[in-house]
Amino acid sequence: MTDASTCGNATDLAERLIACPSVTPAQGLVFDALEAMLVPLGFEIDRFVRGEAPDGPVENMLAVRAGPAGSRHFAFAGHLDVVPPGEGWTSAPFAPERRGDLLYGRGAVDMKGSIASMVAALGQIPADAGTISFIITGDEEGPAVYGTRALIDRMRERGLAPDLCLVGEPTSVNRLGDMVKIGRRGSVNIWLEVEGVQGHVAYPHNADNPIPRLVAMLAELDALVLDEGTDWFQASNLEITDLEVGNPAHNVIPALAKARISIRFNDLHTGTELGAKVSEIAARYGGRAIPVISGESFLTPPGAFSAMITEAIRAETGIEPELSTSGGTSDARFLKDVCPVIEFGLCNATMHKRDEAVAMADLEALARIYARVAQAALRS
Amino acid sequence: MTDASTCGNATDLAERLIACPSVTPAQGLVFDALEAMLVPLGFEIDRFVRGEAPDGPVENMLAVRAGPAGSRHFAFAGHLDVVPPGEGWTSAPFAPERRGDLLYGRGAVDMKGSIASMVAALGQIPADAGTISFIITGDEEGPAVYGTRALIDRMRERGLAPDLCLVGEPTSVNRLGDMVKIGRRGSVNIWLEVEGVQGHVAYPHNADNPIPRLVAMLAELDALVLDEGTDWFQASNLEITDLEVGNPAHNVIPALAKARISIRFNDLHTGTELGAKVSEIAARYGGRAIPVISGESFLTPPGAFSAMITEAIRAETGIEPELSTSGGTSDARFLKDVCPVIEFGLCNATMHKRDEAVAMADLEALARIYARVAQAALRS
Repeated sequence: MTDASTCGNATDLAERLIACPSVTPAQGLVFDALEAMLVPLGFEIDRFVRGEAPDGPVENMLAVRAGPAGSRHFAFAGHLDVVPPGEGWTSAPFAPERRGDLLYGRGAVDMKGSIASMVAALGQIPADAGTISFIITGDEEGPAVYGTRALIDRMRERGLAPDLCLVGEPTSVNRLGDMVKIGRRGSVNIWLEVEGVQGHVAYPHNADNPIPRLVAMLAELDALVLDEGTDWFQASNLEITDLEVGNPAHNVIPALAKARISIRFNDLHTGTELGAKVSEIAARYGGRAIPVISGESFLTPPGAFSAMITEAIRAETGIEPELSTSGGTSDARFLKDVCPVIEFGLCNATMHKRDEAVAMADLEALARIYARVAQAALRS
Repeated sequence: MTDASTCGNATDLAERLIACPSVTPAQGLVFDALEAMLVPLGFEIDRFVRGEAPDGPVENMLAVRAGPAGSRHFAFAGHLDVVPPGEGWTSAPFAPERRGDLLYGRGAVDMKGSIASMVAALGQIPADAGTISFIITGDEEGPAVYGTRALIDRMRERGLAPDLCLVGEPTSVNRLGDMVKIGRRGSVNIWLEVEGVQGHVAYPHNADNPIPRLVAMLAELDALVLDEGTDWFQASNLEITDLEVGNPAHNVIPALAKARISIRFNDLHTGTELGAKVSEIAARYGGRAIPVISGESFLTPPGAFSAMITEAIRAETGIEPELSTSGGTSDARFLKDVCPVIEFGLCNATMHKRDEAVAMADLEALARIYARVAQAALRS
């Protein structure tokens, strides 16, 4: 056991992280703070910067405490960057403040609080139980091009291969422990364009209006039923998110009409396949589609790993968590290529909002849950 | 007969008008030039300015040569403003230049040339044949809010009521005299809006995307068959001219989607009725329509007046003109409320283009045709 003076309790640690402003992309100070917590606990720190404008540079940290030869490797993953605080906070967003049972500050739940609980959990994990690593990026809330993907490259270069990975995103909804994410839908945005021939509205036979073809294409896309959902996923969904012609002249038929759609899809699809399907439909209307995949779906089917997390939550809170795949994307979309990955963390009610806050009791309970999960994972 | 030295030939007169720059709205100098031509021919000149920014001020001229008491009243109508010349002219657009058989300059055919032919025609119309008026605006190519409409108000105030009116728009296509416009379609632009509820694409059940409803509405509007055309009009036509959402966020379902349509309609419809029809369709998709009528349709059915014009054309050119209602709107949409109105003028091949030009022989032939029409009208 590491003594309490070096690892501290989760609330104290969360305060130290929140006090370092780190609007995405996070750099410097907040990484220094985390490094100062991990070094005394025996972690070897590997900090590096990747990328150039516009999606970089991004700072990342890989911290590893190696266990005995041949032992299991369990990884905590997360991010130190936060979304901008916005206006109207009761107390300053980067000056953590305890009021009643809550600790206020940007990142309290998403996800400096979770990282603090991970560090606090280390006090209950003997150094000889196995290898523990922290996969921490400074860019999860931003483009995420040079964040967790660069960390995965770094791990591969160094021959580091965790057996299981837990991402500390705030997955709980009403009470700590009520929801665990065992998967996430994938996401692809597709730009659509139809070209025509400009002309005067009084002489439509001399023009070719691209808008009716775009409208018909969008009507077909909107009517698509991609699937009916699976045992673990809701149905894939397509939304039309933008239309653009930008024609100021009332009497002119425009030459170009554009739209954008966003598809959130389950594990029956890939972004590549959906891009090809939409391209084929667009082509039938004389248009073209330009897909940009934000992330593929992932699913860690219920099994040994989810059971470890469920048992740890039940033991500390008495709650039976729901295993869910709802919501947006997270860095688990990248980590799934490394090993089985599951997300579990604090209550997300205040994330990305003003007066973001966490129950201090939740931070301490989460530290105990994380400790149970890590110990079970290293024994598995 | 007025002697040739005061009325001049049509080409000389056209040069004098073209030499006065008058990009819409026309003011001052070009009206001075026309006034200087008409005063010696016995016309009483009434020049006045109407309107304020953004659609004014606009200068107009009502010139009248009264005939004997009880005589008929024939009106020439037209505009002295021109569209901007643009770049790339062979000779300066407001420095009229004769090259070969052609006279070059902005307004040569649309429609300073026609006005010059109207003035030249006066040489062949005895002052006692009847009342002749010139209804001349400085804003036909622009918003036209304070142009011919203000002239019509002025005529009503003064108790002036022409029996027939000829508008000198360039209606000829390949040869002078091949086409006369006995009507024009009406025009209405309609702004469409659908409101929804903004939200995140990952949680569509918490949002209400307005785009699919707009798309379905536009598909229904695009499929509308307004009519099959009439004896004198082509079918009414609806074009979607703009789409606008303006949503930069890929992961956001927008709160508002907009579009604009333009309908060119024949005399089976009115702008008001079409606005109501589209509003009713828009409402079924939870949207709303805001119609702005540019002009109602007009038709002067073939009869005595068109026969006068046809006979004059045939006598001077040997051509049998087509009586047409094709093309865009003109100020005849307003003048139809005063008396029967028909449009006839020069070849429109170069109108609104660089190196706008007119055959000098056409200017003189048009003067002779206009003289025949006026004399027949005053006899009718």
